[in-house]
Amino acid sequence: MATTLDEAIEAILAAGRRLDSRGLAPATSGNYSVRLSDGRIAVTVSGRHKGRLGPDDIMLVDPEGDPLENKKPSAETALHTVVYQLHPQANAVLHVHSVPVVALTRHLRFSGELLLEGYEMLKAFPGMTTHEVTVSIPIFDNSQDVPALARDVVKDTDLRRREGRDVAPAYLIRGHGAYGWGKDMEEAERVIEGLEHLLSCEIEAIRLGTGGRT
Amino acid sequence: MATTLDEAIEAILAAGRRLDSRGLAPATSGNYSVRLSDGRIAVTVSGRHKGRLGPDDIMLVDPEGDPLENKKPSAETALHTVVYQLHPQANAVLHVHSVPVVALTRHLRFSGELLLEGYEMLKAFPGMTTHEVTVSIPIFDNSQDVPALARDVVKDTDLRRREGRDVAPAYLIRGHGAYGWGKDMEEAERVIEGLEHLLSCEIEAIRLGTGGRT
Amino acid sequence: MATTLDEAIEAILAAGRRLDSRGLAPATSGNYSVRLSDGRIAVTVSGRHKGRLGPDDIMLVDPEGDPLENKKPSAETALHTVVYQLHPQANAVLHVHSVPVVALTRHLRFSGELLLEGYEMLKAFPGMTTHEVTVSIPIFDNSQDVPALARDVVKDTDLRRREGRDVAPAYLIRGHGAYGWGKDMEEAERVIEGLEHLLSCEIEAIRLGTGGRT
Amino acid sequence: MATTLDEAIEAILAAGRRLDSRGLAPATSGNYSVRLSDGRIAVTVSGRHKGRLGPDDIMLVDPEGDPLENKKPSAETALHTVVYQLHPQANAVLHVHSVPVVALTRHLRFSGELLLEGYEMLKAFPGMTTHEVTVSIPIFDNSQDVPALARDVVKDTDLRRREGRDVAPAYLIRGHGAYGWGKDMEEAERVIEGLEHLLSCEIEAIRLGTGGRT
Repeated sequence: MATTLDEAIEAILAAGRRLDSRGLAPATSGNYSVRLSDGRIAVTVSGRHKGRLGPDDIMLVDPEGDPLENKKPSAETALHTVVYQLHPQANAVLHVHSVPVVALTRHLRFSGELLLEGYEMLKAFPGMTTHEVTVSIPIFDNSQDVPALARDVVKDTDLRRREGRDVAPAYLIRGHGAYGWGKDMEEAERVIEGLEHLLSCEIEAIRLGTGGRT
Repeated sequence: MATTLDEAIEAILAAGRRLDSRGLAPATSGNYSVRLSDGRIAVTVSGRHKGRLGPDDIMLVDPEGDPLENKKPSAETALHTVVYQLHPQANAVLHVHSVPVVALTRHLRFSGELLLEGYEMLKAFPGMTTHEVTVSIPIFDNSQDVPALARDVVKDTDLRRREGRDVAPAYLIRGHGAYGWGKDMEEAERVIEGLEHLLSCEIEAIRLGTGGRT
Repeated sequence: MATTLDEAIEAILAAGRRLDSRGLAPATSGNYSVRLSDGRIAVTVSGRHKGRLGPDDIMLVDPEGDPLENKKPSAETALHTVVYQLHPQANAVLHVHSVPVVALTRHLRFSGELLLEGYEMLKAFPGMTTHEVTVSIPIFDNSQDVPALARDVVKDTDLRRREGRDVAPAYLIRGHGAYGWGKDMEEAERVIEGLEHLLSCEIEAIRLGTGGRT
Repeated sequence: MATTLDEAIEAILAAGRRLDSRGLAPATSGNYSVRLSDGRIAVTVSGRHKGRLGPDDIMLVDPEGDPLENKKPSAETALHTVVYQLHPQANAVLHVHSVPVVALTRHLRFSGELLLEGYEMLKAFPGMTTHEVTVSIPIFDNSQDVPALARDVVKDTDLRRREGRDVAPAYLIRGHGAYGWGKDMEEAERVIEGLEHLLSCEIEAIRLGTGGRT
């Protein structure tokens, strides 16, 4: 499981091409990272199109998100590092923008969570072995104060842990996008693709008049 | 029509790339199989992304679904073997997850079948020569007890045969996905692509307020 | 403008790949043809997947649709030849299945035409120089009696010509698909892509509650 | 920042392939341009499919849009040159047709602007640093009188500047399509992809019954 910078770059570039081809990287949206074996984090630099990243579009930051190179990391780097701090088993984080995420989180305008239940695709989340569960995905209000958003994530995770509730490997930011993570890039992509499928199903249920459970 | 393991692997890998490119293989969902001329079954191993399968991601099981190699076959292998047992002419089975399948089977929450009629695309199903028919696609409630699901399939097929009703080359699992099969991989893909088109048309009819016949 | 068989084959194969990549060739649906300079017609054989056609999947028929080779032409060949007979300037015909075509023609269940007006995309049809028109696209009820369908096309075209109305380079078959044509394959593709865009806009208008003019 | 004709051609060809692959160039719709360092403008010629442009499909016009070569420039060239005249920092302009643009501008049938607020994706527009804004995208009624349309664009921009309002890097033409621009092709693509995402979100909001400006 030792991950080098070269492996991280290769994983991020491939993820960018795949997510873009699925419509999950419009404009220059999204940002991706991989945690190396030595604790440093490889993250996309600010403002590049994720469907055509090159090695120079990836840079190293330390575990607190401070740049280790003379480049400007993604403005949302703190939302990656908070995941690595809260989830020691996580080694890859993906953030994407998509129409279903934005439309659904705006539709649920006062809700702090999205409840998903009865979907086979819930098993795309690590550790899930059945569809007969209710999974809560946190929804945070959007903010340009990224450290404040990161504190919201910490607070919510701490509360769920104190209450003995499960913590999903993903969260949503209203009118903005989704974060998902895994023990490696393959698992992080599985979470993001599964989540996109689930949100699309929820939106279709609302359109068809049979709602989601929300 | 003699099918070797190499041919089966090639057919499954190509099907995975194609189904993924059509959005029918989100996360690591789906599983595919081909029956060899000698009766053994080549099936995808558990948990791989179907859009980028390699030869090592395919393994052999016997007609009862028991592994003939030291790998873990798809958890739903019994839903493939039951098709081969019930339909001697079937030599390829595809299982996919898609938003239309999930949304429609959840919308029809108490229904044990989906009725499709009047669509030219029904001719994608082998033996269908006209659109002027009503085709019944079974819908089974989802379960993590795969042998129990397989028994539901057997029971439903037996009942339809006793009643002299047609048995469609496909069935749906509620909130989960679709199974389709054919005499070879080409025919199985034709069934799955046709089914996806038909379910999308049914959903559109409900959205437009003109319903399906259900 | 002299068109040889080799050129016709190349044009049809490329059209198949492009239409399939746009979701306009699910299962083995659709059929395509090109009229050669000598009057013979190159048409797709029956039952092949249009996204992966090879040269052997194209065959020659005479202007009446009778096979000039020992292969089975598309079952709907008469719907191609009728276009060439009615429109001497047409040299390529495309027939596609798509969700918008099927959903919209079933929604307009008693209508014999679709009226499109005010769309800039109407200029994709040859000779259209403004969006300030109302274009009527005929809708025929589906039938497995292809010669009868062909006679419906002739009757409708004759009536429009007698009444001095424009004849659109396309028609729809309810619950089935669309036919479109042009002076060459490039123009036929322009008509089909433009039509698909227009039908998708009409469906969106109905979904949004602002209807189409129908 | 010096831009040569060769660089302009390469940028336009690549943009065409990418926009077509996203469904933003149906039929032969759309037109694209790049302003060279010497003030001349490279623009697509009339009537070609934008997904398969070659170098011969690009031609030079002067800043007033008059051809500098013996070819026919896009009929909407005046809508490109007006952008370059009004926005000295703009060096690339993209015009696309898409279902969301057409459906939304027809739905808002009497409105002269689309108001977008609260979306993170608004930051795809240059200079936008927060989602907490309301951005007004002008909507002009469609016309085949392109110089008149260009005068509408000038009048609207002048009025906004006199009133001290922001001028978005994009405008919409009802039932027709969208224009977007940037300091280079990369920025123009960012604007167009971001706009398409935003319009898709607005349409989804109307479908879900939670409106547009919310």
